[in-house]
Amino acid sequence: MVYGALDIGGTKIAGALVDAEGRLLVRHQRPTPSHGSAEELMAAVTGVLDDLAVHPAWASLSCLGIGSAGPVDTVAGTVSPVNIPAWRSFPLVDRVRRHPAVPRGTRPVLVGDAVAMTAAEHWLGAARGATNALCMVVSTGVGGGLVLGGATHPGTSGNAGHIGHITVDQNGPLCPCGGRGCVERFASGTAIAAHALESGWTPPADGAATAAEVAASARAGDPRALAAFDRAGRALAAAIAATAALVELDLVVIGGGVAQSGEVLFGPLRHYLASYAVLDFTRDVPVVPAGLALDAGLIGAAAAGVAALSGTGRSVS
Amino acid sequence: MVYGALDIGGTKIAGALVDAEGRLLVRHQRPTPSHGSAEELMAAVTGVLDDLAVHPAWASLSCLGIGSAGPVDTVAGTVSPVNIPAWRSFPLVDRVRRHPAVPRGTRPVLVGDAVAMTAAEHWLGAARGATNALCMVVSTGVGGGLVLGGATHPGTSGNAGHIGHITVDQNGPLCPCGGRGCVERFASGTAIAAHALESGWTPPADGAATAAEVAASARAGDPRALAAFDRAGRALAAAIAATAALVELDLVVIGGGVAQSGEVLFGPLRHYLASYAVLDFTRDVPVVPAGLALDAGLIGAAAAGVAALSGTGRSVS
Repeated sequence: MVYGALDIGGTKIAGALVDAEGRLLVRHQRPTPSHGSAEELMAAVTGVLDDLAVHPAWASLSCLGIGSAGPVDTVAGTVSPVNIPAWRSFPLVDRVRRHPAVPRGTRPVLVGDAVAMTAAEHWLGAARGATNALCMVVSTGVGGGLVLGGATHPGTSGNAGHIGHITVDQNGPLCPCGGRGCVERFASGTAIAAHALESGWTPPADGAATAAEVAASARAGDPRALAAFDRAGRALAAAIAATAALVELDLVVIGGGVAQSGEVLFGPLRHYLASYAVLDFTRDVPVVPAGLALDAGLIGAAAAGVAALSGTGRSVS
Repeated sequence: MVYGALDIGGTKIAGALVDAEGRLLVRHQRPTPSHGSAEELMAAVTGVLDDLAVHPAWASLSCLGIGSAGPVDTVAGTVSPVNIPAWRSFPLVDRVRRHPAVPRGTRPVLVGDAVAMTAAEHWLGAARGATNALCMVVSTGVGGGLVLGGATHPGTSGNAGHIGHITVDQNGPLCPCGGRGCVERFASGTAIAAHALESGWTPPADGAATAAEVAASARAGDPRALAAFDRAGRALAAAIAATAALVELDLVVIGGGVAQSGEVLFGPLRHYLASYAVLDFTRDVPVVPAGLALDAGLIGAAAAGVAALSGTGRSVS
């Protein structure tokens, strides 16, 4: 059995054939023509599929999962990635299904990228064996996905776990999503860098104003950089506590570029979590770094395809 | 088939035998000796069971559900109701199981009262047929429960859906639970009355300082009373939007005494929901009043018993 996987992001479009143990048998990618037309974008997807289809293992393809930058609509099979403006309600599932090399009867399975990451962490990463888990990506934005009752919970339209846009400060700043006081407004890499800059932090002469540079300054003791991570950790803690109160969690997994800042982020996050997660059943939920980095999107897309194949919604195990 | 049900609250301990259509065949209750000893409390439960057991339908008992004021621990089978101080980690399930009239082999099923209300609304009330729903009780406190994938989602310990204690204002006032800026701090009947009083509202000469009196003043146009309900509606809206982003909801059901204030509460709630629930998949989630009032706790306890009996966690249908 071989699982096909596509990972659609603002930077690259990647594809792979994955075996039953989650190993990549072959991997191809193309740059995303992110400001190209809808058809130029689709041509890149087609190209990746062409490349995969010449591999001998393609003949054993049993399912095909697609993880895409969101929002997605898994019912309609369409994607509208924020960072890919030419695709709005683009019928990606149907177009992939009609690729000549895709076996007739194969119904590609679409999930959002955070749900794919969650499926990957649940299959092979830090959430392996968890019954109820929240997996988060803290990066340019903040995303997430849920494992509930031992299975990923993508929600009706594939967008569940959208923790970046829950309100933790109902009187807080407006968010580009249209909401107010969203987690992402405090905790994304973009927000961390912006807050540091606003409070007078400056990047090193040879560096850019990125969250990674803010993290480096924080590790060196810069109080403005520390304050930006403190603010991020607080918002993440309030949101994680809320999620634990709503669904009960055994585990929280955090990946993404900003999470790679390590204790600069996890320290304040755990500190504030102790003050927000105070109910008997929310206290002391472990928060750990993601187990997978490279290719988590592809592994997760494959896992989502397998789950749909088995018809249970349950992740592979 | 007859379903047994117990509903343990701070005011009364009620019991019933419920038929497969959710009709109460017999119902008994005793006042809760809320400041009595643990054994005095248990004696009231025993008395209700004694009363039920003499009914002819008791012989057809197929399951026994217990809904209790929380927190509960459904794994340990214990209850620690906030308003019943003598019961802390009290082994209610085991004590009920050992009642002489309870058939051997019957394993009573414990759920929190908000989960019971959710099971009742899903079985026979406003959430009937819903796949993904949030059911809330807005009363002295604020509680809730979730229906996910067509089944109640009690969580590992039976406390999932705890929306009253999610943070909507991370810099907000401390909550008695130990958290900060919790929904209950803004939207409970207690909070509504307190806020109205603090802003100079006074109850009528013949009335008490209750949320119901604040609602009456709000309907008469009192700006301080209106402001207290506006504040409550805003916090509820932020919390509902967060829940919709996290799990995707088709429906929100709100019951409880404060919800009976009607448009005084639902008006501001819907107004603010439009500004917090702005993602494609969270926008326009319907918010409706609960369908059941009397005996929802008993009906829900029965439904929880049936769900456990079938082993699916799925509510009766």
